[in-house]
Amino acid sequence: MSQSATPHLETVSHMIADIQSGNRRTLSKAISLVESSLEEDRVLTEALLEAIVPLTGKAKRIGITGSPGVGKSTFIETFGLACIEKGETIAVLAIDPSSQSHGGSILGDKVRMPALARSEQAYIRPSPSRSTLGGVSNATREAMLLCEAAGFTTILIETVGVGQSEVEVRSMTDLFLFLTLPVAGDEVQGIKRGIMELADIIFVNKSDGDLQDFAEMAKSQIQSALTLMHSPTEDWKVRTLTGSGLTGHGIQELLQLCSEFFVHPSPHDHAIQERRIRQNLEWFEMSCRRELIHWAETQDSFRNAKLKAEQDIINGNTVPSIAARSLINTHLHSD
Amino acid sequence: MSQSATPHLETVSHMIADIQSGNRRTLSKAISLVESSLEEDRVLTEALLEAIVPLTGKAKRIGITGSPGVGKSTFIETFGLACIEKGETIAVLAIDPSSQSHGGSILGDKVRMPALARSEQAYIRPSPSRSTLGGVSNATREAMLLCEAAGFTTILIETVGVGQSEVEVRSMTDLFLFLTLPVAGDEVQGIKRGIMELADIIFVNKSDGDLQDFAEMAKSQIQSALTLMHSPTEDWKVRTLTGSGLTGHGIQELLQLCSEFFVHPSPHDHAIQERRIRQNLEWFEMSCRRELIHWAETQDSFRNAKLKAEQDIINGNTVPSIAARSLINTHLHSD
Repeated sequence: MSQSATPHLETVSHMIADIQSGNRRTLSKAISLVESSLEEDRVLTEALLEAIVPLTGKAKRIGITGSPGVGKSTFIETFGLACIEKGETIAVLAIDPSSQSHGGSILGDKVRMPALARSEQAYIRPSPSRSTLGGVSNATREAMLLCEAAGFTTILIETVGVGQSEVEVRSMTDLFLFLTLPVAGDEVQGIKRGIMELADIIFVNKSDGDLQDFAEMAKSQIQSALTLMHSPTEDWKVRTLTGSGLTGHGIQELLQLCSEFFVHPSPHDHAIQERRIRQNLEWFEMSCRRELIHWAETQDSFRNAKLKAEQDIINGNTVPSIAARSLINTHLHSD
Repeated sequence: MSQSATPHLETVSHMIADIQSGNRRTLSKAISLVESSLEEDRVLTEALLEAIVPLTGKAKRIGITGSPGVGKSTFIETFGLACIEKGETIAVLAIDPSSQSHGGSILGDKVRMPALARSEQAYIRPSPSRSTLGGVSNATREAMLLCEAAGFTTILIETVGVGQSEVEVRSMTDLFLFLTLPVAGDEVQGIKRGIMELADIIFVNKSDGDLQDFAEMAKSQIQSALTLMHSPTEDWKVRTLTGSGLTGHGIQELLQLCSEFFVHPSPHDHAIQERRIRQNLEWFEMSCRRELIHWAETQDSFRNAKLKAEQDIINGNTVPSIAARSLINTHLHSD
């Protein structure tokens, strides 16, 4: 990719050296580049990303989801600090589909996780709140690679449970952690089965004070629901834990479970590697589709015929699905 | 569109005459054609659809959604029969995303709505349970046009509230009706706000027997939640009703509200027409994307380079988003 001749080769190698040496400012600047919607930034971004490929892939990639109100921020703060005590360094990224429309419901700043934000071993990056060239999830994937190049050993990607965002986070992480509230009875039915099926570990958060009994009931109900589901990860048995981000209860057990998940060699170790390859192929497929649409819009004959077809549709003279097929078969140059 | 020379022109005009004369068998056969995944069926389908364009667009298009357990079948049966008493003829179509994977949770047969199924004035078509060339929602849009050509005055399109299916049904109907259960309190929070925002009318179903008090509470809570939302239809105030598909309570009020919605001329009448144009443009856009992807896969140079790029991705030598951009810019023939 070189619209302009060899883009800023020196800039790129300087930035990489800075990122590797732990310079947060350069890391932030690089992530801003991947989030940019400007074509000229894209040239630099691609040079940068291609150069760091060998430095990537070494972190544990953990996705975290749960409805608003489940205590995600407090949980991530406690969990992140506990990981740091075990010697990890943590980058926290977010995918927040709502941030596109109304400025973000995941607060981007350090307010949500003050202690984690102060730690030298942690880096917290808010979800991009503007449109990016390849969409939010593409920017988050690329940001993850940059954080890996910066040497972070664990990447936490959080999302609010809205729309397709859990599916996107699942599609870029190794381990997917689902936080839920200590509610029992019929309400457990309310937990979206679709999300539970994505999770490797389910953590019943806010299991503290008066809610501990409910939490145990919720846990056993979830466990019985799980018996009807497949694990998303080969050779991994989905586990449910109760605990509390607020009191720290259950966090050590959760860490223990996470290290079981990531231990090498393990029966499901190859499953993680295979999943990453599958994830990269999906990422490629999505990117192809996006770029293909972008490319077609730049073809004059296609673009003009498309405008004409749209006019026919506005006038009610044609069936949209037929107009589309005719447009593509007539106005693109085939081999 | 003519891969083969003038496809079965006589067949097409015979089929149209049969469909217009009320022949259900031919209508069913035509809908099977739009659901087909065979290229040769597509040629006939397109000839048929293009020929019926002038016969379409006259029905009231009503979408109906609600979670499993809300009593959708019983409701549609009662509502459909009440519409028929007012002189309407009813076609019931379905979009059921789950039918793709495990054979359908909306029962396709007449078992669910026995009285409606027996009526001369109704036609019930199950959701396609196999993959179709343009996807389920494309097939349902095309089936709707066929039902309009057959003279049905109201098309009901139902969906289970799974994934994106409500959004799809909203995107092909004039009026969107959301069924919910008579639950009050915190559980109302559980009603997905995203779905409520799509609805023109909310019907608290199963408001019968002991549940009537709960239903009124649920109604007033929903109404207060609605004050914070925008109506999906210009110049239309979203309304909440309680009622019961089982006892018929509330169904006449609902019919009254529906005719208010569709009355001509009304302040929001142009809104319905504008929405249909917008919906057709969206349908066109979606179809363009689908056909574009299909077209690219048939280009030899592109397909071969894509296979090579996939190998690079499997070997971990490149960033998928960059590989995609390079592939498209290098291996398609530009103007």
